[in-house]
Amino acid sequence: MSSIESFFNPKSMVIVGASRTPGKIGYELLRIMVENSQRGVYKGKLYAVNPKSDEMILGVPTYKSVLDIPETPDLAVLVTPAKYTPPAMEECGKKGIKNVIVISGGFAEVGGEGVELQKMLESIRERYGMRVIGPNCVGVVVPSTGVDTMFLPVEKEFLGRKYTSSPRPKPGNISLSTQSGAFGVACLDYMHGEGIGLAKFVSYGNKLDVDEVDVLEYLKEDEETKVILIYAESIDRGREFLELAKEITREKPIVVFKAGRTSAGARAASSHTAAMAGSDSVYDAAFKQAGVIRVRDMEELFDAAKALVMQPPAKGNRIAILTDGGGVGVMAADETEALGLRLSNLTEESQRKFQELKERRIIPPIAATGNPVDLTGSATDDSFVESMKILLEDENVDGIIVLALHHVPGVSAELPSKLARLAREYDKPVVAMDVGSSQYAREFRELFEREGIPAYPESERAVRAMKALVEFGRAKNLPR
Amino acid sequence: MSSIESFFNPKSMVIVGASRTPGKIGYELLRIMVENSQRGVYKGKLYAVNPKSDEMILGVPTYKSVLDIPETPDLAVLVTPAKYTPPAMEECGKKGIKNVIVISGGFAEVGGEGVELQKMLESIRERYGMRVIGPNCVGVVVPSTGVDTMFLPVEKEFLGRKYTSSPRPKPGNISLSTQSGAFGVACLDYMHGEGIGLAKFVSYGNKLDVDEVDVLEYLKEDEETKVILIYAESIDRGREFLELAKEITREKPIVVFKAGRTSAGARAASSHTAAMAGSDSVYDAAFKQAGVIRVRDMEELFDAAKALVMQPPAKGNRIAILTDGGGVGVMAADETEALGLRLSNLTEESQRKFQELKERRIIPPIAATGNPVDLTGSATDDSFVESMKILLEDENVDGIIVLALHHVPGVSAELPSKLARLAREYDKPVVAMDVGSSQYAREFRELFEREGIPAYPESERAVRAMKALVEFGRAKNLPR
Repeated sequence: MSSIESFFNPKSMVIVGASRTPGKIGYELLRIMVENSQRGVYKGKLYAVNPKSDEMILGVPTYKSVLDIPETPDLAVLVTPAKYTPPAMEECGKKGIKNVIVISGGFAEVGGEGVELQKMLESIRERYGMRVIGPNCVGVVVPSTGVDTMFLPVEKEFLGRKYTSSPRPKPGNISLSTQSGAFGVACLDYMHGEGIGLAKFVSYGNKLDVDEVDVLEYLKEDEETKVILIYAESIDRGREFLELAKEITREKPIVVFKAGRTSAGARAASSHTAAMAGSDSVYDAAFKQAGVIRVRDMEELFDAAKALVMQPPAKGNRIAILTDGGGVGVMAADETEALGLRLSNLTEESQRKFQELKERRIIPPIAATGNPVDLTGSATDDSFVESMKILLEDENVDGIIVLALHHVPGVSAELPSKLARLAREYDKPVVAMDVGSSQYAREFRELFEREGIPAYPESERAVRAMKALVEFGRAKNLPR
Repeated sequence: MSSIESFFNPKSMVIVGASRTPGKIGYELLRIMVENSQRGVYKGKLYAVNPKSDEMILGVPTYKSVLDIPETPDLAVLVTPAKYTPPAMEECGKKGIKNVIVISGGFAEVGGEGVELQKMLESIRERYGMRVIGPNCVGVVVPSTGVDTMFLPVEKEFLGRKYTSSPRPKPGNISLSTQSGAFGVACLDYMHGEGIGLAKFVSYGNKLDVDEVDVLEYLKEDEETKVILIYAESIDRGREFLELAKEITREKPIVVFKAGRTSAGARAASSHTAAMAGSDSVYDAAFKQAGVIRVRDMEELFDAAKALVMQPPAKGNRIAILTDGGGVGVMAADETEALGLRLSNLTEESQRKFQELKERRIIPPIAATGNPVDLTGSATDDSFVESMKILLEDENVDGIIVLALHHVPGVSAELPSKLARLAREYDKPVVAMDVGSSQYAREFRELFEREGIPAYPESERAVRAMKALVEFGRAKNLPR
């Protein structure tokens, strides 16, 4: 089998079924690639195929057949109607094209004739030894190379105005492999809004050829990918998936959002992608054994991803909570225990140091120095920094959750960089939290993230993110 | 005991401990009240007391003692240092002031001398028959009357710029009673950002007098309040609270976020507010009996509140899911079953109607019409509207969750108003969901909410909101 590298970084690419009608998939997809080319992000060549006319579309050289193209493109993207897709793919094979993405729907997922058409694609693929993503998918999005087959335009009309509708995330180190195209599109929108960077996005639809195991194999070696996210309703090659995952999680974390966890969800999955969801507890046990982190919704998927890409794994599950708000400290303590993590017993040495901070009036005398360490509303930047130092040095602490409500008068916008500077001297993971949607709250969380500390808007989310770091730490030490 | 109405709508109010130094609580609190007065929101009179000088502060008539004020104010707000608070309160008593909010800290919560000082306040209160909120609290915020004793300025310096830091929500119909002041402040920030309107906010700190039961009694009769939210670490007068709650939930929903649900959380609560959290399962059972809706975090608290204020309660727990994204449908089905709700068995009549919609090409032939009803990425506004109608008329459906991913090409910004217009003709609750942070996603959700349909950014959150509507429906029919 040929490599699947060309799906993500082709030197030349042809859109088969390109259209000159705005709004059509064959136009929108080409337009996005032309824009990426003009912006200098996509550096490869572009060709278009339209059986009716060989006039240029959007400035792209257009041919009536792939056979007429003066070179052999690395990648063909097919957006032809289902019944014209087998002959189009046949021509790709003849031309020697090794990588094909079939965006078009109307195959196995619709039953009847569609099943036959998909079988035709399969036999063409085998005959020419091509690698195929799809059919019935949104394909691939790679911000760093500008390959983008998600045909939804960035903007869409909203009551007469043009609004950003399907934005693409910035380049980054998180990759997403998804069975559901629509959910994948929604994820990209979410990632863009949250400022989360993307390495590779793959939606493989009907899985004629490339499936989650193939994608995983590729992402394992991909240097851009530091964290692997997977949305799955079923995993077909279960044993291979788990063995491969077990190898990978030694180095890179894998986070899985496996839907169909209840019988109602499983039934829904089966009518969605004909997926056999399988017993949920079996998945749970298998993921655990393979060091795969399992999350229960989209928010948690990206909350975990952000923590894993920014912070080192935790060496154990003993967590310290540092806060200026008693209430949010209680919430975090609740969630810590509920998730099976432990609140550290701080050392006597730490208690002695906290006492000293009280005497020096660096932390308020009424501060609670158990765990959570509650600096109260009288906290200052200094209280946080000096307390953080004690926790970073405490041998009973494996990770620190900082709940810094910015509303407190003594806390300034310099706190995130002060804490981050300190944390970088140690090898313990730190995550942060501030509640609110005010300008201050949003920028405060952003400052933390710019300094490499993931920041969340709720105590419980910060704790769940820390749990992912604990689980990755555990995965690195699993017996192989 | 005198009424506590004057805490929320006084005709005159005095700030005792007013200061002319920006940044001090006695200045910031007065400044906020002066602004609310200038904006015409606070319509009552304002006085200030500063023992050192009777020069006007911020244009407010200032006296050296409350005894010098030419009338008896309805409400006194004390921001004096702890040790000067008993004599200040004594003067309020002599003056005949019946309602006092003590913002100042340094009482029972710090132990030692503070405990003695609080006892002094208690005996003064008894002698004069005053009602007291606090000490050690942020007091009261009422957007509709302009009473606002939360001393945190709206803006705060952020690296040399002024940023919104502690914004206040717009007037609305949701009231919040909170044991934690800092959490309350954070909630107001969150409500503002989410566009959730506030009726009454009360933080009662050390509960010298007014506690959750008093607040509940007031909110029961308050016409502005349609939904009551409570954050509690402990509930002291448990039996009274539950009996009162049982009466209220026949008419108004009560949503409780009770922290200290694990032993770690309970320990943290005890060092935060000396609260005895009590056995969590006992709370669970008691809340259920009283028709109180329990949530597990802040996000869920406000997600439930929004649904309860916008939509009618559900008459049963049989839910229908309508979507254009298979994946998000699976997630919603999972959460529905996980929360103990049921996916409706749609009637044969409904199936017949869906079949007809397919034949008329109003919904795609490949749509799945079980439950979830998955219109697929080929959905249009019409597909949604016509399908919604079938579900609203289906006697097996008690509530509808619409998962409308805006990314789908055939869905327009007119969908929210079309669906809302239809839903208003029936008495079934509807909640909506669209994933993403793009401009389109945000405005799309806002359009739903402007039309009275609460909209969430995640499938699971929409399901949890629907659950609150089911629970309120159940509460209304509990035997009393």
